[in-house]
Parts: sequence; structure tokens; C-alpha cells
Amino acid sequence: MSMKNNKLVLADRPNPSISADIFQLAEEQVTPLSDGQFLIKNHYLSVDPAMRGWVTDMPNYIPPVEIGAVMRSFAVGEVVESKHPDYTVGEFVYGLFGWQEFAVSDGSDIERKVNPSDGPLSINLHVLGMTGATAWFGLTEIGDPQEGETVVVSTAAGAVGSMVGQIAKARGCRTVGITGSDEKARRCLEEFGYDAVLNYKTATDLVGDLVKACPDGVDVYFDNVSGPITDAVMSLFNIGARMTICGVIGIAPDQVNGPRVSRTMLVKRARMQGFLIFDHMHRLSEAVSGLQPLYQAGKLSFSEEIFEGLSSAPKGLESLLAGTNQGKVIVRL
Amino acid sequence: MSMKNNKLVLADRPNPSISADIFQLAEEQVTPLSDGQFLIKNHYLSVDPAMRGWVTDMPNYIPPVEIGAVMRSFAVGEVVESKHPDYTVGEFVYGLFGWQEFAVSDGSDIERKVNPSDGPLSINLHVLGMTGATAWFGLTEIGDPQEGETVVVSTAAGAVGSMVGQIAKARGCRTVGITGSDEKARRCLEEFGYDAVLNYKTATDLVGDLVKACPDGVDVYFDNVSGPITDAVMSLFNIGARMTICGVIGIAPDQVNGPRVSRTMLVKRARMQGFLIFDHMHRLSEAVSGLQPLYQAGKLSFSEEIFEGLSSAPKGLESLLAGTNQGKVIVRL
Repeated sequence: MSMKNNKLVLADRPNPSISADIFQLAEEQVTPLSDGQFLIKNHYLSVDPAMRGWVTDMPNYIPPVEIGAVMRSFAVGEVVESKHPDYTVGEFVYGLFGWQEFAVSDGSDIERKVNPSDGPLSINLHVLGMTGATAWFGLTEIGDPQEGETVVVSTAAGAVGSMVGQIAKARGCRTVGITGSDEKARRCLEEFGYDAVLNYKTATDLVGDLVKACPDGVDVYFDNVSGPITDAVMSLFNIGARMTICGVIGIAPDQVNGPRVSRTMLVKRARMQGFLIFDHMHRLSEAVSGLQPLYQAGKLSFSEEIFEGLSSAPKGLESLLAGTNQGKVIVRL
Repeated sequence: MSMKNNKLVLADRPNPSISADIFQLAEEQVTPLSDGQFLIKNHYLSVDPAMRGWVTDMPNYIPPVEIGAVMRSFAVGEVVESKHPDYTVGEFVYGLFGWQEFAVSDGSDIERKVNPSDGPLSINLHVLGMTGATAWFGLTEIGDPQEGETVVVSTAAGAVGSMVGQIAKARGCRTVGITGSDEKARRCLEEFGYDAVLNYKTATDLVGDLVKACPDGVDVYFDNVSGPITDAVMSLFNIGARMTICGVIGIAPDQVNGPRVSRTMLVKRARMQGFLIFDHMHRLSEAVSGLQPLYQAGKLSFSEEIFEGLSSAPKGLESLLAGTNQGKVIVRL
């Protein structure tokens, strides 16, 4: 049997920004399976902020995508052919299968088998995938929120932030979101159940607004931005506050310096810790065990912006990086 | 029985620096004991950096010493009279008894009973007291050093720092001290067993010197200073590094800003946590259980600078704050 695979390869490095034309469509024959291999037909591809780092050749936590190689991506696919004893035709799997129609696997790139009865297949890319696991481990293990505490989330309407807010809410916390548009602020309140929300772009007194939103101070801060927003949140830390550092996109080039944090950390006996989901993906099933009941109970709202067809993936990434997306960016094949 | 107590009271706030003359000698009659009380005769008084904060009226983790009140201080004393069922004449105790000859206690200010057979009484003020407990909990619980890891200590020759270095050494770590004089650097190597030491005052390339001293990077940093020294150490953090923030004396007034730490914390998945010993003093016996065997095995060198007589305590504090002391400052009564 001869089968064609269409894929998107990385043709260029960003110069300096990432545009759709650094990716190129390519076609190849699917190589016949060896023993111990199986063939995955991708149904949904993921588009994630982490791709910003993967396409550069800067030192990172994971090697860069090579020029000419298929773009790295999480995906949900179906086993359509198998010479592997543990994977059966008709099973669904989640893993780093790349921006392509088909992927040959030996099992080493499988994060977990997906249960189609858990909900729409696509949620395994976010609510029950890397996004959800980021929120789950970053919040519950580093933030360790307790009932009645106040949890602040930056990029509160984002794929990760909205999960963090909802998990914290389900644990009985007061949740306060910080976001960058009135539309996102509205979604924070109406869809993600935050108790209060701030638009940092229109705020004239961010600290004052935070004081009103957090009358009992801040116990847990899930930070996706760093920079001046984080300075403001830290000024409200309670004794014993915990902070998860999950992203640093808010450090503008002219803001690499800022207030030293040591005195606040000492006076408040606070803890901050950097979090990278790739250190924890081998425990994905553990996160899903925590997230799946919340999802079934209707406590994890989300929205998806679906791009149709493999060739639309680069546009999806552009949209995500520009912040014009409405929800988790997904490519449907 | 009428008995006189001599004490040092706080007569003035620092203006702005702390000098011996903000304290005043006073005499009083010891009030007769009520049921549930006992009388302590102090043998050794402690002089600690924390006193810098206690004599100001700035907001702090503990209320300021009131004007006219006896100066707050840890001390080791002997029970000389008792109407308390749990404290017997002849027993030795450690607690916040103040800069005075006698203290009446109801037991609430007792940190622990001291065993005179553990060594010289005075070590209960430092090696087996607050100093040792600071090093023990701050290093072992936040730093969590593992055999073979590299542990860096700032104010490496100080009362706390020297304990940290020796506990880490006893756990099989490579220990690197940062200190501010060649004499202290010599003591770090010869007395406290550091594997390498840096004098930050004479260093022309602190990061370069650290790279040489820490060929495998930095896994644990016990920080007593913050500021530029800490910036340098953090640049060598390994993935998963842990940092205990125990003091911030290195933040000069013109250095309240510095490099933002979030990116380093994220990329290195590092953890930093503020540590205040007063949160942990109720667990002092636990620290002593860890420290006492090390002391008995000769693995905890220390030096004391003894000031003779109650009236010398303010001079001892001046010496400590000026950094001219040689070892733990103690007042012998």
C-alpha cells in the first residue's frame, strides 16, 4: 500500500518575528511500518505559545525544530495501522505527532491514550492535555491553593489562565483575573467564573484596583507574564504567598530591570517557583484524573478557535501570537 | 527575700544608626513569684543582627521593643526559684529572657530546656539555638541539598552562614562561601571547611570567579544578602536550583532595582523562598536533634566573641553591626 502524507516543515527561522511563510507544505510517501511501529492519522493539531521558542535556534528546554523538519506539535490521532502489541487500530492517542496528516510512531512519542467517551476529541489537546496539565500541576503543586484563599491569575482568559482560574474556583478560592481587553474581562466573569477581573491596559491604578479586587490580599499568584503586572501583584502578597512562574512574556525589552523581590519574599516568607510543563508530561494521566471530573461536572469552560485544514496551521499560530484568537487554537484535519 | 535585677532598657530609637547610648542601665526589685512562675538567672545573653529591626518602630514580623522596656534578647539561664510544676531549680533554659540578670517566666517564653552535658552552656545561644536552627531549617527544608550538589552561602563566615556551610559539607555537598574580607575567607577555608571561597569586595569578576568555584553550577543558594552578589550567583543556577532568602542586607539604597528574576526562575525551574526563623522556633528541638550529633562529631566549628558583663551588651551590638566581631557575639553575666 502506498500512502501520501502531507506535512508542514519549518523552512526558515523567524526574521525576527514569526510569520506564516516560515512554514512550507511538503508531501511524502508514508514508509511501511516495521515491527513495533504503528501509524497515526491525526485528527486535531495543537497550536501553542511554546512554538515561539521551538522555531528559533536559541538555547531552550527542548532542541529547536531543525530547518526542513516537520513542525513539532501536539496532536490527537487515531491508530490506523499497527505492528505494535500495545496499540490497536481504532485507538486514539495524544502526543507530539507534528503538523502533518500521518505520523509513524514506536510509542515513545505517545503522551497517553485518549478515551473518546471523555468528550469531543479536541479537548484532549487542551482541557485534558498539555494546557490543562500546565494549569493543574502549576496551580495545585506549586500554588497549593486552600479553600478561602485569594488566587490571582495573569493572562486570565488564556488557555492556561482560564483553566487555572476555574480549578482554583472549584477549590473554593476567591479568583481574580488580570487580562488585556474588555472582551476578555467579560469572558473571565461570565465564562470562567472569576470573582473579579482587571484590564491592565486600561487601569490607571493597577495596585489600587488590585487592593479592591483582593480585600484579603494575595495568597497564590499564577504568573504568565512577569514585569510590572507582577510587581503590582507581589505588593499585595500575604505571609506565606506562593507564586508559580509559568511565563515571562510581560518583560518588555526596556523592563529587564525591576524592583528586587528578595525583601518582599523574605518579609512575606513567600515562595516562587518556575514551572515548565515538559518536566511533568510523564505524569499527564495524574492531571487528567484531577481534571476529568471537573470537566464532567461542567466546571471547566473553554472555547476553541478551529482552523480548518493542515495548511491553515501557520495562520492559526500567527493569530495566537498576535493575541487575536478567541480561545484555544486548534487545527482540524 | 528582696532581690535586685539589673537590666538594659531601650531608651531611644536609632537616630538613624544604632549606637550603644540608645540603651540605659536600670535597676529594679524582682517581684515575688506567683503560682505558675519561676525565676531565671541569666548566664549568657545573645546579640543578634535581628536586633537591628527590634529597636526601630518600623513594621516588622514582631512588635518593636517599647521605649523603656527591657531589650529583647535570647538568653541561657538557670532556674533559681520555682512555683511552676514543670521547671525545677537547677534546670537550664533557653528563651527570650532579655538583656537583664534575672527574668520571671511562666514558661511561655521558654524555647527549650537546655542539657548542660551537650557542651558549654553558651552554644545553646548559637550552634544549638536560634543561629543553628536558622541554618538547619533554612538549608535542609528549603535548600534540600543532596550529596554531590554545589551549595553557595553568602556571609559565609557569619554565625548563620558558617553553620550552613558546615551542615552542607556534612551532607556531602561542595560548599562555596562568599565573604567580605581575606581574614574571613581564610576562616571559611580553615575553620568551616568550605571547598572554595570568594571575597566579593576584592573580586574584579565575581561571576567569573564563581564559575571557577562552581564548575558544576549552583544547586542550592543560601542567601543572607540579596543585591548584586545574588544576581551573580543566580546566573549560575542549575535546573531545579533552590534558594533560601534569609537576609537582604546587600540591597544598597541605590540598588532597590535589579535584574528581574522571573526568566531565570522559569528557565531553570528554580525555587526561592523567604525564611524567618521565628516561624520555626516552636520546632527548635527538631533542629537540635539534627545539629547535636554534628556538633558532637566535631563537624560544627564556631567562634565566640565574649563581652563581659551586662553593661557591655550595647558595645557587643555595635561591634556586630559594624562587622568587626570575630564570631558569635555573646554577653557573659
